[in-house]
Amino acid sequence: MTGTLYTIGMGPGDPELVTLKAARILAGVPVVAFFAKRGRVGHARSIAASLIGAGAAELRFEYPYTTEIGHDDPQYRVAMDCFYGKSAEAVAAALDGGDDVALLCEGDPFFYGSAMYLFDRLARAYRSETVPGVAGMSGCWSRAGLPMVHGDDVLSILPGTLDEADLVARLSGAHAAVIMKVGRNLEKIRRALELASLIDRAVYVERGTMSGERIVPLRDLVTPTAPYFSMILVPGRQGVR
Amino acid sequence: MTGTLYTIGMGPGDPELVTLKAARILAGVPVVAFFAKRGRVGHARSIAASLIGAGAAELRFEYPYTTEIGHDDPQYRVAMDCFYGKSAEAVAAALDGGDDVALLCEGDPFFYGSAMYLFDRLARAYRSETVPGVAGMSGCWSRAGLPMVHGDDVLSILPGTLDEADLVARLSGAHAAVIMKVGRNLEKIRRALELASLIDRAVYVERGTMSGERIVPLRDLVTPTAPYFSMILVPGRQGVR
Repeated sequence: MTGTLYTIGMGPGDPELVTLKAARILAGVPVVAFFAKRGRVGHARSIAASLIGAGAAELRFEYPYTTEIGHDDPQYRVAMDCFYGKSAEAVAAALDGGDDVALLCEGDPFFYGSAMYLFDRLARAYRSETVPGVAGMSGCWSRAGLPMVHGDDVLSILPGTLDEADLVARLSGAHAAVIMKVGRNLEKIRRALELASLIDRAVYVERGTMSGERIVPLRDLVTPTAPYFSMILVPGRQGVR
Repeated sequence: MTGTLYTIGMGPGDPELVTLKAARILAGVPVVAFFAKRGRVGHARSIAASLIGAGAAELRFEYPYTTEIGHDDPQYRVAMDCFYGKSAEAVAAALDGGDDVALLCEGDPFFYGSAMYLFDRLARAYRSETVPGVAGMSGCWSRAGLPMVHGDDVLSILPGTLDEADLVARLSGAHAAVIMKVGRNLEKIRRALELASLIDRAVYVERGTMSGERIVPLRDLVTPTAPYFSMILVPGRQGVR
């Protein structure tokens, strides 16, 4: 009897924003798998710290890069394919041994989650259940006190990696927007919001729901780059009060 | 001492997809407020059934309409403004009496939630905390086993009430899309997906995470309308496997 793969959303960062279902599964599962940056605990793992049952085995998958390489760099693609392939093999070995595995994922797994790269490799061969989580953006707009979309508003979720003209075009057509992957794209995003006449509604949120949380109007942010756990929120039409 | 307003996301429907924080607050709060359709328990209230503490008072706000009136109908606007105004007054009275109030909201409150109409009226006058929830769409795509957005995908969240040309234009530019408010807009949405060449990737989800759940490729859905708890998902580029 092979085990079941549970792909589990751990929410935006506050450990109390984990679901009852995630907490129940984590308390009982014999193997916990997660990604981590080199030298770090791993964000999803740190959220789960108080929820993992005593004696659970851990599969820690350390990303091969600590800084971003252009995602269009063929070397990066190959290395990441290899990394995800090996990680999937380790999870498969545990499942083959009959153990259920909880694969931890920050936020919601199917919403820009790394866990999808293992899910894509394993879900057809094993029993699998995905437990949705509170998305990082929901944590951020709740903490910012920003009702985002009412009624017939359109919400566009945009990676900050888009080029500036594309960002401007997409922002101009949206009622509300979330810009993820801010990091070193901050200055470009700022210019795009300026050109789309949305800069005055934009709110910057760093480490939403976590210690060190910072929420400021984007106009008031003077730094040229932003950390990984940051996003920019532009609330919709009736959200402008 | 006035009370605190907790605006609480109850998740997509499965009571186990409520957060630990929501469960903790609900167990202790003296007043619970929620919206309901005429003759119904209320969706958020039914999710909360096993979590509300014994002896909590309940404020039930019944929508003045059971079927949708055009949201551009001035009579509808006036009636809803009046309804939300009176509901906010009832919550304010409890807060003024010193009681904390948990305002229940299906999904995530600031993501198309009715609770925002009370939040908008009360949050500046009272202490307020918003507890994010798992969005309905996250519940649906998890149950459908559909990784939605990877890497640099753009996700567009569109109400099915948009006119057909607008839907086509927005769908054509998106990598991934979620179409909410399907209901009587189903045939129009189907035509728009056809015109945007996305119909073959579209998945229909009804009552996601709840009893009576139904998940089918949109192509296989033959009915001309859909119920309220339904949405259409179009997974992003790398989600097409």
